[in-house]
Amino acid sequence: MTDADAMRRALHVALRGTGKVSPNPRVGCVLVRDGRIISEGWHDHYGGIHAEVHALRRASESLEGATMVVTLEPCNHHGKQPPCTDAILATKQRPDGTLDPSRGIRRVVVGMRDPNPQAQGGIERLQQAGIEVTVGVLEAECRWINRFFVKHVTTGMPYVIGKGAISLDGFIATREGQSQWISGEEARRRAHALRAEVDAVLVGRATVERDNPHLGPRLVRGRMPRRIVLDTGLRLSMNYRVLCDEHRMRTIVATSRERAESSAADALRREGITVVGVSVTSAGRLALDELFVTIGKELSITSVLVEGGAQVLSWCIEHGLLDELHLFVAPMMLGQGISFTAALSAQSLQSAPRWQYHALGRAGDDTHLILLPQRPS
Amino acid sequence: MTDADAMRRALHVALRGTGKVSPNPRVGCVLVRDGRIISEGWHDHYGGIHAEVHALRRASESLEGATMVVTLEPCNHHGKQPPCTDAILATKQRPDGTLDPSRGIRRVVVGMRDPNPQAQGGIERLQQAGIEVTVGVLEAECRWINRFFVKHVTTGMPYVIGKGAISLDGFIATREGQSQWISGEEARRRAHALRAEVDAVLVGRATVERDNPHLGPRLVRGRMPRRIVLDTGLRLSMNYRVLCDEHRMRTIVATSRERAESSAADALRREGITVVGVSVTSAGRLALDELFVTIGKELSITSVLVEGGAQVLSWCIEHGLLDELHLFVAPMMLGQGISFTAALSAQSLQSAPRWQYHALGRAGDDTHLILLPQRPS
Repeated sequence: MTDADAMRRALHVALRGTGKVSPNPRVGCVLVRDGRIISEGWHDHYGGIHAEVHALRRASESLEGATMVVTLEPCNHHGKQPPCTDAILATKQRPDGTLDPSRGIRRVVVGMRDPNPQAQGGIERLQQAGIEVTVGVLEAECRWINRFFVKHVTTGMPYVIGKGAISLDGFIATREGQSQWISGEEARRRAHALRAEVDAVLVGRATVERDNPHLGPRLVRGRMPRRIVLDTGLRLSMNYRVLCDEHRMRTIVATSRERAESSAADALRREGITVVGVSVTSAGRLALDELFVTIGKELSITSVLVEGGAQVLSWCIEHGLLDELHLFVAPMMLGQGISFTAALSAQSLQSAPRWQYHALGRAGDDTHLILLPQRPS
Repeated sequence: MTDADAMRRALHVALRGTGKVSPNPRVGCVLVRDGRIISEGWHDHYGGIHAEVHALRRASESLEGATMVVTLEPCNHHGKQPPCTDAILATKQRPDGTLDPSRGIRRVVVGMRDPNPQAQGGIERLQQAGIEVTVGVLEAECRWINRFFVKHVTTGMPYVIGKGAISLDGFIATREGQSQWISGEEARRRAHALRAEVDAVLVGRATVERDNPHLGPRLVRGRMPRRIVLDTGLRLSMNYRVLCDEHRMRTIVATSRERAESSAADALRREGITVVGVSVTSAGRLALDELFVTIGKELSITSVLVEGGAQVLSWCIEHGLLDELHLFVAPMMLGQGISFTAALSAQSLQSAPRWQYHALGRAGDDTHLILLPQRPS
């Protein structure tokens, strides 16, 4: 079993924390001895024990000479849990409390360093105790499963994913606004899987008024994300699902700073709904960059799925607010309609926003494209 | 070696006729004995010997008990070549000219029946002579490599492929008409490979005036296709490449019936250029369906690649004239511009033209989508 094989298994078990560990990262850990996995652990829920400790506690065999393979650098600080480095070094203690380099965990393989400045130093502490440490095995995959955490911990802002179901010619709805359904069942299932993965789903007021969406991951298993509704004038009736159903305490209404102080805002708050006031741009729109900073810092939201409508998605693209974009392309053509890039207007090919394909494949009758913005390297 | 294995090899050698056998089909043939291929042949150029005869002549070993695996039903008629069934049955003749069922080719595996009514009957003739015939091995693949031939021989019209290089939001050029280059080098190379495969490439007058294209497969090896230019009013200057370069004898100018009788048309004809007159629709456009019938019947053109511009491509889509569509999707967004579906306007999702993905994959930095129209089943 190579380090990469073991890391792949660690990545796999890390996913068991999906939707439950935020704002912490998803972490997986396996212990390997004599070429086989003798234990595995993962960070299961926010505030719970860390993956490394989980794996050590679950081991039913001797740890003498074992290798620990973990997707993220073991932490070296006291947060909700004691430092993982302590637990690793404890396997090396003699009965008198001193360390014996030949005992316990002898080697640690780390997928990626911890981007959180407070948690760093784990690798160095292990090395000082005589443990051999290898860093960077399947690093790209480890970064990918924790891209929400990395963005949030380094910038304070959530990782923002855009999602659109479009025709081959880029329309998310007909001229009259018909959009149900451009994409097929499998594409919708994948969109729901995204909902189950993020901390919050964001939509504009017009989308709520048109579709009265539930915004939960109904087509897959998963927990309800927080729901963010943009409502500059706070004009949305309380009869829509997002404001009155049993999950309304997980709804956040973003409005102007002025309206956030109004009696209408207080009425929402009495229902358990969070109201956030942000600036309004000269174009009369809520400043989404400011909103993202606020919900990242004050509500610990590490990831947002922007579902639309066209204006909101388009505005996020125009202002470079998306870290990732999922397009489900249905094999149909509309000729005219509402485009997902309606707010954009590139003057030349050179000035057009460029992306790169991260992945592409079939999703039932549709194509699923995952794009990342092409940033200056 | 299974029948399918042998057929895959036959399909492979059939491709050696690419660009050279039209309006005939590409055909490949292998002879199998004792589980291995003892000879192979293909239809190499128009008027040349057929794949079956080629394979029989090239065999350097005994054919006793051999199986012939051929992508298309062996012909049973005298065209430019004698019937292939004669050549197959000749392997079974006794010195006195009578047939011995136990001699020569004992079994024939056929990919698909010949759609040409004149050439049919081969399978029945072989069976009557005591040869075991299996039909339909890798039939879909055999139909695919001969989709040009099948369409042409059954309808008299060429198989029409549309090609567009578009942004993620469906634009083939900026608002100012800039289109070079939306797609990258690999996408352009694949577009040139399509040029090498079809009998003719079609563009509108505006494209000639803007880009002065050569329309040859310069980025790949292959022969120059015929070039069709739509010029309703016959206003194109003779200085453009398609009308004055060394390949001008392979250029076809489509114009109105009236202009086809003008002195301007005669001037083109003196340069060796073919001028075809077709009706003009009430919208003032050349009737492309009529053009396709004419070039299919009178010029034996079995396949056309419609390269644009936007109006021509869009018009073909609107009128259901495309049998296949290649979209190279560049990971950029323009917001506004010239759409490849500009002439379309679907009133609802239900009335939108629907396609199906035949294939999709990366082409360098771009995505290559191959679509087929979804026809009522």
